[in-house]
Amino acid sequence: MQEISTIQQMKDWSRQSRNNEQRLGLVPTMGFLHEGHLNLVRHSLAQCDRTVVSIFVNPIQFGPGEDLARYPIDLERDKKLLADLGVDAVFIPKKDELVPPDMNTFVQVENLTEHLCGHSRPEFFRGVTTIVLKLFHIVQPDVAIFGEKDRQQLEVVRKMIEDLNLDIQIVGLPTIRESDGVALSSRNSYLSPEERESARSIVQALESGKSLILNGETSAEIVKNQMRSVIASRTGTRIDYISVCDPRRFGEIQRIENPVMLAMAVHIGNTRLIDNYLVEKNSCKEPC
Amino acid sequence: MQEISTIQQMKDWSRQSRNNEQRLGLVPTMGFLHEGHLNLVRHSLAQCDRTVVSIFVNPIQFGPGEDLARYPIDLERDKKLLADLGVDAVFIPKKDELVPPDMNTFVQVENLTEHLCGHSRPEFFRGVTTIVLKLFHIVQPDVAIFGEKDRQQLEVVRKMIEDLNLDIQIVGLPTIRESDGVALSSRNSYLSPEERESARSIVQALESGKSLILNGETSAEIVKNQMRSVIASRTGTRIDYISVCDPRRFGEIQRIENPVMLAMAVHIGNTRLIDNYLVEKNSCKEPC
Repeated sequence: MQEISTIQQMKDWSRQSRNNEQRLGLVPTMGFLHEGHLNLVRHSLAQCDRTVVSIFVNPIQFGPGEDLARYPIDLERDKKLLADLGVDAVFIPKKDELVPPDMNTFVQVENLTEHLCGHSRPEFFRGVTTIVLKLFHIVQPDVAIFGEKDRQQLEVVRKMIEDLNLDIQIVGLPTIRESDGVALSSRNSYLSPEERESARSIVQALESGKSLILNGETSAEIVKNQMRSVIASRTGTRIDYISVCDPRRFGEIQRIENPVMLAMAVHIGNTRLIDNYLVEKNSCKEPC
Repeated sequence: MQEISTIQQMKDWSRQSRNNEQRLGLVPTMGFLHEGHLNLVRHSLAQCDRTVVSIFVNPIQFGPGEDLARYPIDLERDKKLLADLGVDAVFIPKKDELVPPDMNTFVQVENLTEHLCGHSRPEFFRGVTTIVLKLFHIVQPDVAIFGEKDRQQLEVVRKMIEDLNLDIQIVGLPTIRESDGVALSSRNSYLSPEERESARSIVQALESGKSLILNGETSAEIVKNQMRSVIASRTGTRIDYISVCDPRRFGEIQRIENPVMLAMAVHIGNTRLIDNYLVEKNSCKEPC
C-alpha cells in the first residue's frame, strides 16, 4: 500500500491510474477507522480497479467548542487495517498543505444544509463540501463512497457534484451497527460504559418511531414525541434535534405519507452522536 | 468550428481532446465579442492545440436592478468572428441547463472579494466563481484566459484555482483600448456619443493618477482626489469607487511604495464601466 502525504504526489499517482484506464474509488474518512469505514473500503475494492482512502481530520468542519482537539487518531492502526484489506493507497495530507492559513475559497450547498446537523453546526457542511471538493480535485476518483449514517452529508455531497457538473459517482452504503443496534462511530470511543448503555436509546428511539409509522401513524409530531420520550427516559442524554423529514432535502414533514427519514442528534454526556433511519410504509430500508 | 450547446456534448468533446493529449485552452466570455476578447482567443490559439470559447451571459453574477435584461447579445456575429479566427469549438450552454432552478451550490472566494467590485456588487464574484468552476469542470481546460481589465476577477479566479487544487493555468492579458485610451467593453455599446466622450475621463483619470505616482507622490489620498476631480469635471459621470490598492489582494493602500493598482468604477449615464492601471514607480505595466 502506497502512503501518500503530499498533494502533488497524490495527483501524480491518480494521473497514472487514469492513464492506465483504471477505475478509481475514493473513500474519504477522518480516520480512527471502524467496521463502517472498512465496509465502504471493501465496496470500493470490489467495484473499482484501484482504491484510495483519505484520512484527514478536517479542521474547517468543526465549530468553536466542538471536539476537534480531542478527535481520536490512530494512524498506525488505520494503515494496518487498510493494508490488510488490500487498499492501493492511503492519502494522509498535512493540515497546512490542504488548509493553508490563507485559504479563502469555500463551497456551500444551500437549502438542504439549513436543516438537522446544518442547523446545529452552522459551519459543518461548508467545511465538508470544501474539503471533499478539494479531495475530488486532487484524487479525481470515478467513484466516491460515503456512509448513510451521515445521510445528510451524503446527499449534500451528491447535490454539490450535480450542481458543479463533476462526473463522480457518489455511492452511499447502509450504516453498520453493533449487535445491540448502536451505529458505529469513531466518537463512540468517547463513551464511558454507562454512556455506551445510554447510547442505545438512540437506536431504540428510531425503532420505536419506525414501529409507529409501520403501524399506520401519520402524525410526525406524535412520532417525534415518542422518540423524544425514549431518549429522555435515559440518564445523561440531551437531545440536539429529533426530526421526521424528507430523506433528500431534509425539510420537516408534518404528515407521513411518502418515505421519510427519522433523524436525530443526541448528546450522551459530552459526546454528540447522530443516527437515522429511512422508513417506508410497508417496507423499510434499515434492518427490519 | 464545432457549435456545442449541451454540457454532455461539451464534456465528450473535451474528453476526446484529452485522450489525444492535446493542450486545451478555454476563453470564458459573456459574448458580444470585441477586440479584447479576440486578443484572448488569439493567445489561446497560439499557445494551445485546441481552443474553446464559451459564451454565457451568467445570470447569477448580476444583482437586482443591474443590466442582465439588457446585456447585449449577437451570437451570429460572435460565431462568425470565432470561426474566422480558427476557434475549434464554441460552447453556448442553455441557461436552464447550466443554472437549473434548483441549483443550490455556490463557490465563494472570501477577503479579496470584499473590495472594489465585490463591495459594489455583493453577489457578483460568487456568481462568477460558481459559473467559472462549473465551466472548468465541464471543459477541463489546461489553460484559461482572462482579461486584465477585470483584474480583480482574474485574481479571484486564480485564488479559487489555487485553493481548490485545480491544475489549470490562469493567464491574464493586458487590456485592449481604443485609440483614445478607452478600454474595450461590451458595455460601451450602451453609450450615446456624448456619453462615449465622457467615458474618456476614466482613462484620463488613471493617466493623471499614474503621472502623480511616477512623479513621486506617495499619498494615496492625494492620488485618489486627483482622479476624482478628473471624473467630476465631466458631465453625466458618477463615481462608484476609486481605489489605490494592492494589485493582488485589493486592500486599500495609504502610502504608495510598492506597485499599486489604480482602479475605478464609474457610472456614465446608466452605464457602469470599470478600468484599472497597474503602476510601479520607475516603470508601469500599462501603456506608458
